[in-house]
Amino acid sequence: MSDFEEQKITPAVLESFGETPDPRLHALVESLTRHLHAFVRETQPTQEEWAQGIEFLTAVGQKCDNVRQEFILLSDVLGVSMLVDAVNRDIGSAETDTTVLGPFFVENSPIFAQGADISSDIKGDPLYADVLVRSVDGYPLKGAKVEVWQSDAEGFYDVQRPGIAEGFSLRGTFSSDEDGRVRFWSILPTAYPIPHDGPVGALLKATGRHPWRPAHLHFKLSAAGYQTIVTHLFVKGDPYLKSDAVFGVKDALVCNFPRHAAGNAPDGRKMETPWHTLGYEFALAPDRNM
Amino acid sequence: MSDFEEQKITPAVLESFGETPDPRLHALVESLTRHLHAFVRETQPTQEEWAQGIEFLTAVGQKCDNVRQEFILLSDVLGVSMLVDAVNRDIGSAETDTTVLGPFFVENSPIFAQGADISSDIKGDPLYADVLVRSVDGYPLKGAKVEVWQSDAEGFYDVQRPGIAEGFSLRGTFSSDEDGRVRFWSILPTAYPIPHDGPVGALLKATGRHPWRPAHLHFKLSAAGYQTIVTHLFVKGDPYLKSDAVFGVKDALVCNFPRHAAGNAPDGRKMETPWHTLGYEFALAPDRNM
Repeated sequence: MSDFEEQKITPAVLESFGETPDPRLHALVESLTRHLHAFVRETQPTQEEWAQGIEFLTAVGQKCDNVRQEFILLSDVLGVSMLVDAVNRDIGSAETDTTVLGPFFVENSPIFAQGADISSDIKGDPLYADVLVRSVDGYPLKGAKVEVWQSDAEGFYDVQRPGIAEGFSLRGTFSSDEDGRVRFWSILPTAYPIPHDGPVGALLKATGRHPWRPAHLHFKLSAAGYQTIVTHLFVKGDPYLKSDAVFGVKDALVCNFPRHAAGNAPDGRKMETPWHTLGYEFALAPDRNM
Repeated sequence: MSDFEEQKITPAVLESFGETPDPRLHALVESLTRHLHAFVRETQPTQEEWAQGIEFLTAVGQKCDNVRQEFILLSDVLGVSMLVDAVNRDIGSAETDTTVLGPFFVENSPIFAQGADISSDIKGDPLYADVLVRSVDGYPLKGAKVEVWQSDAEGFYDVQRPGIAEGFSLRGTFSSDEDGRVRFWSILPTAYPIPHDGPVGALLKATGRHPWRPAHLHFKLSAAGYQTIVTHLFVKGDPYLKSDAVFGVKDALVCNFPRHAAGNAPDGRKMETPWHTLGYEFALAPDRNM
């Protein structure tokens, strides 16, 4: 055991974790050690490549601050975030498909009343959303918490804009009505690149990948007694649907956002330019612990 | 391809890297993707566990600064640094065994003349080292660059001490003489814990591991036409030789540091307290590119 030659290293590291008090942590560090060592044995990195790896991970960590989470981006572009999402889904569930949270979610976003406009007068094609929150067996869920967030017409989220103290925009929290419905005004989302001025962007560039995500709105849906869902609704026809930089697209989440001529919207608002609508039924599964 | 269900995610990520221009980078990201995904499939982390993993890696990156490299520490305690070292060694080489660089190496340390004292009057048991640098086939190497660094008697390296601007101590660069020998005075190294006030220390604590390294001196040896070696010499009898926190111990690197009574040292220095000696023959292999 004192001579850590190549074949002895992995058993020695596994043995060192043998006294881990928490069995779940023990399983995680043991599996991590085996897979990490298998990667090193397979690729046989030189000392220079190892040093580059250390530098890359350090740069990813140092790029993080209160509005930028570069390790989530790294997890996203390596497909790890979507894989974690997938392994947590019940097979055959009728629940709405889930997808990545992404780095731009904010806890406690502003609360809006039914029918409110979350666009803060930001320019874009007007969008009227009318979505339903129901249980997987078809019952409308009243009082469900519906959190929405999206980028502006230039592809930026409010938290990426310099004047963050000025408040949030294109982001809000709603409560579903007696029929399980939430209606709000916003603007049509557009495709945008993930932040690519950091080490993750450099990795994408070096590997010949683009940083674009197809246009989408984010939704987080929570209701007492039901499993919380994090998902997107994507705009049909977007050129990046088949090459999403973070692998977040699922067929069932791609929606029509039909365009309408100027005229009266369903809530009576008089539209002087063309506008779009979005309809969707979100299905929530009962909480596993209930 | 647009529906990234569990079984489709890994092939989709591998395909996304398909246009990587550099073949070596392609091999590295492909292997990383496969092993990382295998780890996720095997452990099935919850979203909370994934978030804890992101937080941990972020904390490791943010702990790094110009005198602290927490990702090297993480690599060390997971045995990755020693495994990278092992996969880079020629099987059956007569070269001196190598071990981890560690986070405390400094480029361009002060140059000392033969026989100099690198201890800067730091307290400890005096140590007189007399080492030989030779080729694997037995020829003494003149003018080899021998870089030495070690902790003080309290277990700290100079770069860990607050008054870093005051200069280096227990660290120096020597050149071997015509007989391939380097002699210097220092103090006997002591066992010390790796820095454990950060996230890597928290990981060790949570997994029931101690942070100690057995007492050692670091050596980096470079000579024109030969492969550079990074290694340690460990003090025989140290209680942590069998549980080095970074798995760096190899039997051939454990040395006697014999203790001598007060009296005359080999270089004529008059010792008024007991002192130790260290002798070792370093063997360097010819450069692979020569």
